[in-house]
Amino acid sequence: MNSVISEAGSPARGELSFLWAKDHMGILKKITEKVLNGQPLAGRRLGFCLHITKETSVLLMAAKELGADIVACPANPLTTQDDIASFLSEKGVTIYAWRGQTDKEFRECLNKVIQFKPEIVTDDGAELHVLANNIRCQSILGGTEETTTGVTRLRSLQGKKSLLYPVIGVNDASTKYLFDNRYGTGQSTIDGLMRATGVFLAGKHVIVCGYGWVGKGVASRASGMGAIVTVTEIDHIRALEASMDGFAVKRLLDVVESGDIFITCTGQTKVIRKEHFQKMKQGAILANAGHFDVEIDVEYLYKQDSNPVCIRANVNSFKIASKKIFLVDRGRVVNLVSGEGHAPEVMSLSFANQLLSILFLSKFHAKLKKRLHRVPRHIDRAIARYSIESMNIRIDKLTNEQKAYRHFI
Amino acid sequence: MNSVISEAGSPARGELSFLWAKDHMGILKKITEKVLNGQPLAGRRLGFCLHITKETSVLLMAAKELGADIVACPANPLTTQDDIASFLSEKGVTIYAWRGQTDKEFRECLNKVIQFKPEIVTDDGAELHVLANNIRCQSILGGTEETTTGVTRLRSLQGKKSLLYPVIGVNDASTKYLFDNRYGTGQSTIDGLMRATGVFLAGKHVIVCGYGWVGKGVASRASGMGAIVTVTEIDHIRALEASMDGFAVKRLLDVVESGDIFITCTGQTKVIRKEHFQKMKQGAILANAGHFDVEIDVEYLYKQDSNPVCIRANVNSFKIASKKIFLVDRGRVVNLVSGEGHAPEVMSLSFANQLLSILFLSKFHAKLKKRLHRVPRHIDRAIARYSIESMNIRIDKLTNEQKAYRHFI
Amino acid sequence: MNSVISEAGSPARGELSFLWAKDHMGILKKITEKVLNGQPLAGRRLGFCLHITKETSVLLMAAKELGADIVACPANPLTTQDDIASFLSEKGVTIYAWRGQTDKEFRECLNKVIQFKPEIVTDDGAELHVLANNIRCQSILGGTEETTTGVTRLRSLQGKKSLLYPVIGVNDASTKYLFDNRYGTGQSTIDGLMRATGVFLAGKHVIVCGYGWVGKGVASRASGMGAIVTVTEIDHIRALEASMDGFAVKRLLDVVESGDIFITCTGQTKVIRKEHFQKMKQGAILANAGHFDVEIDVEYLYKQDSNPVCIRANVNSFKIASKKIFLVDRGRVVNLVSGEGHAPEVMSLSFANQLLSILFLSKFHAKLKKRLHRVPRHIDRAIARYSIESMNIRIDKLTNEQKAYRHFI
Amino acid sequence: MNSVISEAGSPARGELSFLWAKDHMGILKKITEKVLNGQPLAGRRLGFCLHITKETSVLLMAAKELGADIVACPANPLTTQDDIASFLSEKGVTIYAWRGQTDKEFRECLNKVIQFKPEIVTDDGAELHVLANNIRCQSILGGTEETTTGVTRLRSLQGKKSLLYPVIGVNDASTKYLFDNRYGTGQSTIDGLMRATGVFLAGKHVIVCGYGWVGKGVASRASGMGAIVTVTEIDHIRALEASMDGFAVKRLLDVVESGDIFITCTGQTKVIRKEHFQKMKQGAILANAGHFDVEIDVEYLYKQDSNPVCIRANVNSFKIASKKIFLVDRGRVVNLVSGEGHAPEVMSLSFANQLLSILFLSKFHAKLKKRLHRVPRHIDRAIARYSIESMNIRIDKLTNEQKAYRHFI
Repeated sequence: MNSVISEAGSPARGELSFLWAKDHMGILKKITEKVLNGQPLAGRRLGFCLHITKETSVLLMAAKELGADIVACPANPLTTQDDIASFLSEKGVTIYAWRGQTDKEFRECLNKVIQFKPEIVTDDGAELHVLANNIRCQSILGGTEETTTGVTRLRSLQGKKSLLYPVIGVNDASTKYLFDNRYGTGQSTIDGLMRATGVFLAGKHVIVCGYGWVGKGVASRASGMGAIVTVTEIDHIRALEASMDGFAVKRLLDVVESGDIFITCTGQTKVIRKEHFQKMKQGAILANAGHFDVEIDVEYLYKQDSNPVCIRANVNSFKIASKKIFLVDRGRVVNLVSGEGHAPEVMSLSFANQLLSILFLSKFHAKLKKRLHRVPRHIDRAIARYSIESMNIRIDKLTNEQKAYRHFI
Repeated sequence: MNSVISEAGSPARGELSFLWAKDHMGILKKITEKVLNGQPLAGRRLGFCLHITKETSVLLMAAKELGADIVACPANPLTTQDDIASFLSEKGVTIYAWRGQTDKEFRECLNKVIQFKPEIVTDDGAELHVLANNIRCQSILGGTEETTTGVTRLRSLQGKKSLLYPVIGVNDASTKYLFDNRYGTGQSTIDGLMRATGVFLAGKHVIVCGYGWVGKGVASRASGMGAIVTVTEIDHIRALEASMDGFAVKRLLDVVESGDIFITCTGQTKVIRKEHFQKMKQGAILANAGHFDVEIDVEYLYKQDSNPVCIRANVNSFKIASKKIFLVDRGRVVNLVSGEGHAPEVMSLSFANQLLSILFLSKFHAKLKKRLHRVPRHIDRAIARYSIESMNIRIDKLTNEQKAYRHFI
Repeated sequence: MNSVISEAGSPARGELSFLWAKDHMGILKKITEKVLNGQPLAGRRLGFCLHITKETSVLLMAAKELGADIVACPANPLTTQDDIASFLSEKGVTIYAWRGQTDKEFRECLNKVIQFKPEIVTDDGAELHVLANNIRCQSILGGTEETTTGVTRLRSLQGKKSLLYPVIGVNDASTKYLFDNRYGTGQSTIDGLMRATGVFLAGKHVIVCGYGWVGKGVASRASGMGAIVTVTEIDHIRALEASMDGFAVKRLLDVVESGDIFITCTGQTKVIRKEHFQKMKQGAILANAGHFDVEIDVEYLYKQDSNPVCIRANVNSFKIASKKIFLVDRGRVVNLVSGEGHAPEVMSLSFANQLLSILFLSKFHAKLKKRLHRVPRHIDRAIARYSIESMNIRIDKLTNEQKAYRHFI
Repeated sequence: MNSVISEAGSPARGELSFLWAKDHMGILKKITEKVLNGQPLAGRRLGFCLHITKETSVLLMAAKELGADIVACPANPLTTQDDIASFLSEKGVTIYAWRGQTDKEFRECLNKVIQFKPEIVTDDGAELHVLANNIRCQSILGGTEETTTGVTRLRSLQGKKSLLYPVIGVNDASTKYLFDNRYGTGQSTIDGLMRATGVFLAGKHVIVCGYGWVGKGVASRASGMGAIVTVTEIDHIRALEASMDGFAVKRLLDVVESGDIFITCTGQTKVIRKEHFQKMKQGAILANAGHFDVEIDVEYLYKQDSNPVCIRANVNSFKIASKKIFLVDRGRVVNLVSGEGHAPEVMSLSFANQLLSILFLSKFHAKLKKRLHRVPRHIDRAIARYSIESMNIRIDKLTNEQKAYRHFI
């Protein structure tokens, strides 16, 4: 069976991207080398539903190197890098992915993965898990899930009826959420915004909606580029934290008139909506860093101006109440659409959690209850250690006297 | 029975300090006003073992205003502000506290609090809780504890035999540890260091040992004053976090030669010891931000130079291997000894947790198991809300559509 | 006479870019509106030798709107944006510019501008000024120069023989060098680096060579993205400044082994050379922010590995002593090659100086000595005022009492 | 003749302070050692009018070590540290200084210095220079001046009639104003504010009035402590700079209602006045970092409430329109009154300029015109070099090829 790949993408180009990413994902290399000889995934059938990017290719090739038999489909119809898909296909990964799938095609690819009878499935957003549970797919021994959104959906599923197999929620690992969500999104959102718009950040009034991990990262990096940052929140504890981090905290409606750039980081719907658009200044720029494209009420914008000018590749200029409002990436996640998503160094933390969780499930799936699990603490710690080592950093160790002191106090 | 107070401290001076602190502890005022009419602590006998500072006087006077009958002793023989003790005594608080107690006097004061037959006891370091549990004090219905160290001791006590009464560990509240430990200690440590030494921080190489909440705060504020900060750690996750926050991470021994100022924030013993002292440069300055004075091996310093020069009020100059090494506050906690401890705004968050926990215990003690409890989540949230309100900040609220969206996803 | 333009560039696309830039260059709009009615440049023949970018098109169209007759050529054979050139041509600007000119073509275009008999010439790098002075071009009444490098060359020319006409060195205006060189290059260099490499900056050890305005900007923004920055310098005053800004300062050779990313900002030749390459770690990334491609000894790299792998569009991977070293943009200026150069907001400060200097020369050229001049102070101040106004910022004014106080003290 | 010193100050205590300061003023030690053998000041009569602090004692003792005969008086009636005066007197410096002089006593001490017939005079504020010029003191061969204010007064004097002797304005040296005024005042102002008030800075809205070197330093350090900083300015260029440094810029009247802490850094009179006081929030704190106590209209405050409560040692609480407004140090310079002034490391830069300028004047006074001079550039550079060396920092040197390149371009 041939895998379906885009003709446009060149496998040679894909290989270079793979090599570049691999060079910046030292943790995965360390892990692979450590367990390589045992071929711990020999014969294992793994199904992946992930954004098909250069970083993902490093994970898939690592799993392959450890002996696995792999099939993959995209987590989103629009995010596949075709040259990477070509490269993976050429290397023997069965892959159903190309950029710009229709919804129907996207569904078909998910089904192809199920038809492969995977034993362990790795997902980003729980689309594959939901499908597998709905059709009671019997081949699956265990699964992993990358995102907060996916974990939330699985939790809801678990609430209704027991899951078909144990799932490890990678997102809860310290080495995931402390880094990926905060520092990773922080940089890639600013990067995506600069690629999309090319505007100057120093002196700009940037409104960051939401001060969870993503908002914290975005506010910190925007401020690091010289922007004047105001935070909006609905949670008092986070509002207090933002304030003591040195950011003004205000209601969106109270600050909307003076904002130059708005970045939504909330996980909520219609955070920026009619009442806000109407008070915005001429030239305001809107971008979204959240998973779904619901945070900015894009529908409203199109209702007011159904034919916006595409003023730059990823920027649409809407006429709203005689002012121009600029929308980046149609309100979809700016770091993936205008940028390259998270940097490989960050993805290597997340994917190390994936790889070690897959290895863990492969060995211990029979002993695990059929529900959501956290990444085992020893895996989390090991990844931090590998990461520090791959950065050539040496840290202190407790002396014997100090170990004793810990128990004494 | 007269309370024993220092003659040196003037109650009038103490009252001014109380008023100054009260003006900066708006949350306590808000809480008091809200429940004042009910006099919810009427007749309640409260025992406090806290550092007797201006901030503590605001907590005690608030409890008094709500009807409580109060006795207090210090949490440390050296930290009492005598004018505050005088003022509290004059206002009808039974207080056994003066600066510079002997260890015997300190113990006697603890006993006096027990003899008062308190119903609810509030402690900072668990000295009073340990005593009460050991002598099986029967009057106590519940207790609260301020510090990590105290909670650790109570957990150990709980491990051996059940506690005599339920205790709420205030330290675990978000509105405590996220702010007090990080931002509070961050500022007060830098403040204490500047008062003690008067040295310039910009361009100085500052070594921060430990990157827990305290280390995070200290590193951030030292960097904010222009210092070049290097972090040392024993934990890989924290090391990674420090690194991505932009701080060099090294083994102490690898960086000790170039350090100008060392600040310990670990909770561990002998973090800076012989092997480090020997490699330090001429003029290195050592200060401790941790609870106990064990983080710098002060004993070793005195063994090498039993008669150091007191070169400034709180700085001793040791001759170690023909170099001068400067020790601040004899290795005791620099923000309390050279500074004024946490700023009142920070203490108002912690003490709001104390006051609401006392009110909670007063009402629900019978329903609580005799073990350690977390601060109820609704109290934590209420404090954040009061705090935001007292700063005149308004934040957003979820729309109905957004509330529905939360459940939907 | 038809102007020669690239067929590839679409004028419609160019117009959108022009409009986007214009929207972010409010100062130029303010200036144009203020003097528009007088048509102060009516009939003036202006020659421009500038990078043909969207920002330049805003300057040229403003000059055109004020009545000028315009000819333009590029300041660099590789930096022309073809769609902008098409757009300008369509709008009636005589333009000799396309991307990827040969050196011969580049020279011919310079000559075309001279043949146009310009009265005022605006240059970026002094290529046109040097030519005009060498061939004793008689039509020119005055000129302006954008860069430090250009001003240096003109000074050298002035040293040998008197200039043919007065030249205003725009680079010396406060509203130019305080902003363009520092904040402008700061952002665009980081932006270019991220576009070229996609690597993570947080936790990376970034070596900034040189701490002039450019180095200051780059160090500040790299640090703002979470990098650990070390500065190298040859000047003690700047070294001291870097140190007190919180950056470690070292000799390049002493820090080269631990550097992850190197950015040259010196204006000097062979700052990074053989002795440094040999000690670099595997995977080091090299980029240049200086005007010329001489700061990194690229020649040496090609001697060691004449056939580097083009691992990403703008990154070459060299094998040096069995390690991979990554060179960005072949050592050419990273913000222009991988990025879009300065953001329009920054260019609007520089180009406002150009436009007002052109207007000034047009009126007063006869009264000016034939040598280098600074931008008149009143122009510099006016631009700052327009800029503040275009950001909708209101600032304080001296009271009469304060004006008197100034003279009194 | 005995010098007049305070009995209260202990010379032993003073010596310890001197030693502490000397340990942190490595540049002066380096300079002294370098020229010591020549005894270049042997027999020179030097008159000093400086704040008598521990740092000043290091300068005076260095001059003495080089052979000078010294007399000193204070630059301000209130700033003398008595123990330092005692120590200097004991070491053979003729000194007329004690804390809390009357204006008459202060004048008499100035006269004492003149009567000593000094050959070179060093001043801070030009009080001594103005006196010497007015009475046409004939002994003086040259002078130096520390402050901007002093240089302004000398310039005005020079405008009216020629000066009696050449004066070197130390304030204009790069190694003075780039560091002392910005980083020095930045730290010491925040330090003084924390000592005076003990309030929390994180999350506080701090209004910095003026964005010259002092304002830049204060804004940067306040922000570094977690404050939310807004800048007010009257100059558009500085306003633009503040904005691009990431600070909101507003008119004072537009932001006064939301300010928690106000710090004046302008050199102007009545920057905060009636119209502002009336709109301030309850509990606003006012402090001044400028040389004179005119920046806050203290007179107005006393008119409204002639009897403010001294709520902390250096804080007065005024009742203004039924709100409490807190004034720090009665509006006098907060870093000197509540803090210890500049840190010794910073003063060592300024005083190295003083010492080398004195040496320069001693040798070359006859060749210098009787007017204001800048610190010779080679002195400025030498100090930066000594400073870098005393911090054990090594920096790069130009290669021969690079030296040639400089001339070539």
